[in-house]
Amino acid sequence: MRVHIPIFDGFDELDAIGPYEVFRTASNVGADCDVSLVTLTEQDTVTASKGLCVVPDGVFPPPSAAGAADLLVVPGGGWNDDGGGVRREVEAGDLPDAIRAHYETGTEVASVCTGAMLLERAGVLEGRPAVTHRSAIADLRAAGVEVVERRVVDAGSVVTAGGITSGIDLALHLLKRAFDGETAAAVAEELEHDRTGDVAVVR
Amino acid sequence: MRVHIPIFDGFDELDAIGPYEVFRTASNVGADCDVSLVTLTEQDTVTASKGLCVVPDGVFPPPSAAGAADLLVVPGGGWNDDGGGVRREVEAGDLPDAIRAHYETGTEVASVCTGAMLLERAGVLEGRPAVTHRSAIADLRAAGVEVVERRVVDAGSVVTAGGITSGIDLALHLLKRAFDGETAAAVAEELEHDRTGDVAVVR
Repeated sequence: MRVHIPIFDGFDELDAIGPYEVFRTASNVGADCDVSLVTLTEQDTVTASKGLCVVPDGVFPPPSAAGAADLLVVPGGGWNDDGGGVRREVEAGDLPDAIRAHYETGTEVASVCTGAMLLERAGVLEGRPAVTHRSAIADLRAAGVEVVERRVVDAGSVVTAGGITSGIDLALHLLKRAFDGETAAAVAEELEHDRTGDVAVVR
Repeated sequence: MRVHIPIFDGFDELDAIGPYEVFRTASNVGADCDVSLVTLTEQDTVTASKGLCVVPDGVFPPPSAAGAADLLVVPGGGWNDDGGGVRREVEAGDLPDAIRAHYETGTEVASVCTGAMLLERAGVLEGRPAVTHRSAIADLRAAGVEVVERRVVDAGSVVTAGGITSGIDLALHLLKRAFDGETAAAVAEELEHDRTGDVAVVR
C-alpha cells in the first residue's frame, strides 16, 4: 500500500506526522506499506501551522502514474485562520482538484481534522457522512455534509477523522482495514497508543 | 516558560512533534510558553528515525545563557538500532553532558520514550523513579533505575514518559504543572486528545 500525505504551508503538524509515524511503523513491523509527505508542486521546505519546517519527500504524482498513491491522507490546519493552510488551499482549488482526480481513479481518500474541508471542496463527501475538527463541524454541516461526531468515520472509500490526535486512530483503522488487526495492534503497541495508566506522581 | 526539545539524527518523530504541538498550542490558547526544536551544534536539517527531515529552529544555548531553556524535553528514537539515534548520542556523551549541565543550573528535564536513556547517561535519574519505552525498560532497570510502569512519571524536577504517544500526555502534564488545569484542558480539547467515541463505520 502506497500512502501519500499531501502537505502544504500551514498544514497541522500532528495531523500529518501522526499518520506518517503509524504507516512507517507498520512497514517496520512487516506490512507492505510505504508513506511519503508530498507537495503539489516542487517545494524545498514546507512550514506547518505551528512553525515546524519540513523537507518534503517529493512531488505528488498524478493518479494512475507510476508511483501514484493507493491511499491519500489529507491533513488539516489553518481552516480558522485568515488565508492560511486549508483555507488557502480550498480557495486555490488545485489540491482539491488533485484529490478528486485521485478519487475518480480509485484511490482511497482520507482526511484528518480540517482536511475534511479539502475533501468537501473536492466533492468526495457528497452523500457520505464525515467528521472534522470540532471547530469546523458547523462549516462542514453548512456545506451539506452529514456529520457523525466520532473520532473516525469510515464511509468506505472515504474515511475522515476528527481533530489532530484522531489522525493516529484513523491511520490505525486504515491499517486494520488494509492489512489486519494484528498489524494495527502491533503498531499501536509500538507507539504505546493504548491509553492505560496515565500519570504517576512519585516525588 | 521556554521549552527546548533537543533533536538529533534518528530522533523519533512523534516523541518530539507531539510535545512540540502541545506547547505551541498552549501558546495559542494564551499561555506564556515558547517551544523550539534545537540541535547541539549547527545543523541544516535533522533526519528522524522514520525518515522525516526537519529544519531545526537553532542551536541549543548553554544553561544560564540568554535564551536558555526552563524545561528540556528529550525525545527518544533508535535505542534498539545499531548505532543510530539515542544509542549514538549516549555513546558520544555530548548531549547527556548538556542535559546534566542544564539540570545542575535548575532547568527542569523531561524525556519521552527512550530519551530516558539519555537522562540516565546524564546522571539525572539517580535516586529518581522513571519510565521509558517498553522495549527499553529492562535496560533502564539494568542501569539501576527504579522503573514505574505508567505513561508519565513525575519525579519532581525530572519527568519521564513511556513510548512515543505518551509524550503528548507528558507535555499536557507539564503544562498543568507549570500553568494550570484549564490550560492543559484547553490544549487537550484543541488536540481532541480526549479518547471518546473511537470509530464509527457508516458505509
